[in-house]
Amino acid sequence: MATSPRPKKISLGLLGFGTVGSNVYRILDEQAAEIEQATGASISIRKILVKDPSLHRSGAPPELFTGDFEEILGDPGISIIVELIGGLEPAYDYITAALENGKAVVTANKQLISQQGSYLFRLSQEKKTQIRFEASVAGAVPVIKVLRESMAAAGIQNIYGIVNGTNNYILTEMYRTGAKYQDALARAQEWGYAEADPTEDISGKDAAAKMAILASIAFHSGVVLDDVACTGIENVSSLDIAYAKELGLTVKLLGVAKLYQNRINVRVYPALLKEDHPLASVSGAYNAVFLRGTAIDEIMLSGPGAGGMETATAVVSDIVSIVAHSQPGFLEYPVAYRDLDFYPDDDVVSTFYLRLEVEDEPGVLAAIARAFGDHEVSIESVIQKGRGAHAELVMVFHPVAERSFAAALEEVSRLPEVKAPPRPIRVEGENE
Amino acid sequence: MATSPRPKKISLGLLGFGTVGSNVYRILDEQAAEIEQATGASISIRKILVKDPSLHRSGAPPELFTGDFEEILGDPGISIIVELIGGLEPAYDYITAALENGKAVVTANKQLISQQGSYLFRLSQEKKTQIRFEASVAGAVPVIKVLRESMAAAGIQNIYGIVNGTNNYILTEMYRTGAKYQDALARAQEWGYAEADPTEDISGKDAAAKMAILASIAFHSGVVLDDVACTGIENVSSLDIAYAKELGLTVKLLGVAKLYQNRINVRVYPALLKEDHPLASVSGAYNAVFLRGTAIDEIMLSGPGAGGMETATAVVSDIVSIVAHSQPGFLEYPVAYRDLDFYPDDDVVSTFYLRLEVEDEPGVLAAIARAFGDHEVSIESVIQKGRGAHAELVMVFHPVAERSFAAALEEVSRLPEVKAPPRPIRVEGENE
Repeated sequence: MATSPRPKKISLGLLGFGTVGSNVYRILDEQAAEIEQATGASISIRKILVKDPSLHRSGAPPELFTGDFEEILGDPGISIIVELIGGLEPAYDYITAALENGKAVVTANKQLISQQGSYLFRLSQEKKTQIRFEASVAGAVPVIKVLRESMAAAGIQNIYGIVNGTNNYILTEMYRTGAKYQDALARAQEWGYAEADPTEDISGKDAAAKMAILASIAFHSGVVLDDVACTGIENVSSLDIAYAKELGLTVKLLGVAKLYQNRINVRVYPALLKEDHPLASVSGAYNAVFLRGTAIDEIMLSGPGAGGMETATAVVSDIVSIVAHSQPGFLEYPVAYRDLDFYPDDDVVSTFYLRLEVEDEPGVLAAIARAFGDHEVSIESVIQKGRGAHAELVMVFHPVAERSFAAALEEVSRLPEVKAPPRPIRVEGENE
Repeated sequence: MATSPRPKKISLGLLGFGTVGSNVYRILDEQAAEIEQATGASISIRKILVKDPSLHRSGAPPELFTGDFEEILGDPGISIIVELIGGLEPAYDYITAALENGKAVVTANKQLISQQGSYLFRLSQEKKTQIRFEASVAGAVPVIKVLRESMAAAGIQNIYGIVNGTNNYILTEMYRTGAKYQDALARAQEWGYAEADPTEDISGKDAAAKMAILASIAFHSGVVLDDVACTGIENVSSLDIAYAKELGLTVKLLGVAKLYQNRINVRVYPALLKEDHPLASVSGAYNAVFLRGTAIDEIMLSGPGAGGMETATAVVSDIVSIVAHSQPGFLEYPVAYRDLDFYPDDDVVSTFYLRLEVEDEPGVLAAIARAFGDHEVSIESVIQKGRGAHAELVMVFHPVAERSFAAALEEVSRLPEVKAPPRPIRVEGENE
């Protein structure tokens, strides 16, 4: 074995000491020997920033806690700052100050990275230091590292992500049990898979932030949260799920990022997937990211979404990566080095599923088919089911520009025979 | 954006120019701009070693080809050597010489790494250079990088791998269509998923080499091919698969690497998995690696197994990693830095499935149950099916030390009522 030099010592400043922070402390402690072997360094937390140091008396030695960020920033022995406060402020100020001072940064902050990532990436390059944010997407599933380092030359074209465990838990419940959305949500809250106020998750905003981060890295171009249109799952009905099941499809809240002819489109919406698609089997609170590129066929990474322990593991793996690569002259993988345009949603070609409640009268299907035909929207399959005076039409269409489909749908929804506002769902995972 | 310095130039020597080699050449050419952006370097192949340079007139400029390794080794401009010859010799000599000369090495050679890895890893550390081998396991699925870099501190305890596409294709066919092994093998050969001589794959040897590599990295201790006992799939009967299906199980050739109380056990065998296990949905020629550790719950990486393009992508991603991390003082992640003992197969606690052909006479089940009971092997479930004068008993057992199960099985197989040699199959993926 190679001679082991005396381990160098690396000191961290930790900002925040909630569930993730205390787990980071614990993992660094418990895995100290393994980490030292893996990196040749002994890593310890020198200071922990909390609001009120007098309240913290457990989980770490009391003398580590401080209420003063400047004390951490000004400590020349601290070379890495781990930001686990979350939110935009003061996290942004702290991280900026750390990078300005040449310290490396690890953060789990998806809000911040999805909104200020491009600036922070550039700053870290200018200052010849590093910012890592593995924990911001998909917990301990190392999707950031894989995209940034292993796929740097894979020419990624498509990313499909199941990146929010709450939504996936709810949709899995609805699919398995036939439950209605509200009941599945209540169950998710009961089991701790959804917050008391689930808006951030259910609206798709949380997934949108993560997709902005993934798209920025994969396409090497800044995508921010506001660039990602999102539709939540609250309008997915148990009826749609039952029909989807009949059609051999399952439903997921998908983040979809595509590169078309050097333009980017990133969105989050409920989507139907064939049951044999690799993402279809990602159930419950699991996360998965599915990649396709010019030089790779399909790669999927999956695992439990963000729990306190998973997030902490991802943070520690970033710390380890920085320590192993903190040599002078280290070249950080650049993230967003080009500036691609966006592809308008309307121009995207999609496959749609649509359930229509109609009056059960002769000629209804003909009128609807004609309206779609007028907009050159072509029906692939249709199932008609009578329900008393009403009938249901369940249709799947051939791929079509979303603009045309929207125009046809508007016309169809104005037909007097159509009883309820139609809510189409995209079908994904076909050959694109 | 940070000022872009003029890109440094990195020159490679390529050893071998088959399918993988020519795809590496092509990807480096086609992705040149992306790679330069990602690494700040322009990478080109300066020389290509082939047996007979006069035969190579396409795929790369003719002046690059040489028949003389020394010409590549002695070229001070070449900093990375990419070995794509395969096999033990002369690959071992070439790689050793490259590392001795301080050149970094990328290889796709699973035979070599699974047999000489520990020595090569040490050598590369001593010489302060790097050896990377992503392409040796699971094609473009970046499992080596993830294990080595992201999971360095995750305390990996279990690895389950579907790491041979040929076996998985055959078993998927058998499961889907009810085909017999020989017919599914013939179909795999027809479609190019199995070689004309499939011994290396079918025997499990190929999977064993890959599991040796994965276990070495995950457990940080040298595991070589010979340490991995393997059972192939040729005795998996379509009858077993049909019964497994009834029990909600699917069958895979699994590589299983476990760390018990600081001792290692690595094996390859056909195994039954519950249909909702994440690995159960990995079908056809796909590969997947499933990880579990003290600090991570379950992480799965999956994608197409080794095709020429996938393997080339993995090779290029290693080249990119080296270029990005080739600064002076770079610290390679050490691989096998400790020396753990092996856990004897007999002591492993496993769950078994067993189908027994017996005479359909009263008292048979009692005799069999008694034999198992005498060895404290406890039956969880049993199905008895009459087939004329014979009957079939399909049994699943509670977890038991393999030693006890083997002893019980030997006794059972000697019972006059048991008509055919019993072939148990392990059930994996329960809570371990």
